[in-house]
Amino acid sequence: MPPRPRERIAACAHDLFHRHGIRGVGVEAIAEAAGTNKMTLYRHFGSKDDLILEYLNYKGKKSDEIWAEVEQSNPGDPIGQLYGFMEQAAKFIAEDERGCDLANAAVELTEAGHPGLRVIEEFKVRQRDRLAALCRAAGASQPGLLADALVLLIEGARVSRRSLGTEGPSANLARTSKAVLASFGVGRPKRKSRPRLRKGRQGTNPQVPLT
Amino acid sequence: MPPRPRERIAACAHDLFHRHGIRGVGVEAIAEAAGTNKMTLYRHFGSKDDLILEYLNYKGKKSDEIWAEVEQSNPGDPIGQLYGFMEQAAKFIAEDERGCDLANAAVELTEAGHPGLRVIEEFKVRQRDRLAALCRAAGASQPGLLADALVLLIEGARVSRRSLGTEGPSANLARTSKAVLASFGVGRPKRKSRPRLRKGRQGTNPQVPLT
Repeated sequence: MPPRPRERIAACAHDLFHRHGIRGVGVEAIAEAAGTNKMTLYRHFGSKDDLILEYLNYKGKKSDEIWAEVEQSNPGDPIGQLYGFMEQAAKFIAEDERGCDLANAAVELTEAGHPGLRVIEEFKVRQRDRLAALCRAAGASQPGLLADALVLLIEGARVSRRSLGTEGPSANLARTSKAVLASFGVGRPKRKSRPRLRKGRQGTNPQVPLT
Repeated sequence: MPPRPRERIAACAHDLFHRHGIRGVGVEAIAEAAGTNKMTLYRHFGSKDDLILEYLNYKGKKSDEIWAEVEQSNPGDPIGQLYGFMEQAAKFIAEDERGCDLANAAVELTEAGHPGLRVIEEFKVRQRDRLAALCRAAGASQPGLLADALVLLIEGARVSRRSLGTEGPSANLARTSKAVLASFGVGRPKRKSRPRLRKGRQGTNPQVPLT
């Protein structure tokens, strides 16, 4: 069965907002791309702001799915989850030149008090808290400070990917975050393919090749 | 003497672009704010894109001035300049909720090949190269990787400041960058007010309070 108008409109809005920014696209273009008209669009979404909120919530949920995958791949292993999440983040950033849709929207939503800003804030707080809880569980020396450093590296990589492309500093997100994790006492996770633990403390020196 | 029309138009464009984004403001609003009209604006700036380029170049020059100040305050002292620049960056980010005008413009300029993207790229490359040269001169263990880490932290702090405010991870930019500098073997600069060097290696452990 082909998707219904509401789903088609939402999917087209996600795609167009992502590529052109939420200010770069009007409801008319979204309705047209969805093969419908403005009247139908407004029947499903009361305003462009409603569509923006739907988009931001959807993007937040997609990111939550990455967290769920990382947890499933590293059950009960906070260090593995931390490294896994940073690797996933590096992969996604390399693949997508537009950067973080939520952070981009925060740049575009310049009206103070826009409801979208609250959705973005809630999502970013949730992500930061998850990282801090993992840093704590992983025995980091200063878990809150480490979580903030990781947040800044991820956010920075997304925005730098946009201005400097894949060859810029964002290409080093995985390596820099591993160096930072190590410097806060969170060593490299043991490799599944290497069952025997090596002697000595690992991964605490950023001079060691990190990938 | 009151500023001439060209200067007035440019100043108003800087202010309005900064506050509302380059897409959030039209030439009409800029002309009105400058106490002139669209015809005069177009006599001085051929198009809105010309105004955008003027804005981006101006913002790049303002940032170059910060570098010049940091160099003057720490002559011949690459470690002092590195710490000084990161401190200045943290200060500016805390003071301005809009983030980096150049990175914001890169989010808004979604048309591939827009000449503004080249201005942004050149500026960001220059900044990254300056940091890398300082990291090298400061004897960092992996200067290129450290420079990339610092770039990501700064860019991340600017964008995080936008979505999470002054109390979010961006508040820890100075502390995290000091921890990262230390973990790459770049110790704290000696304090001018403390002429005697303390014994022992300083600032290589992020557990030490950093500010």
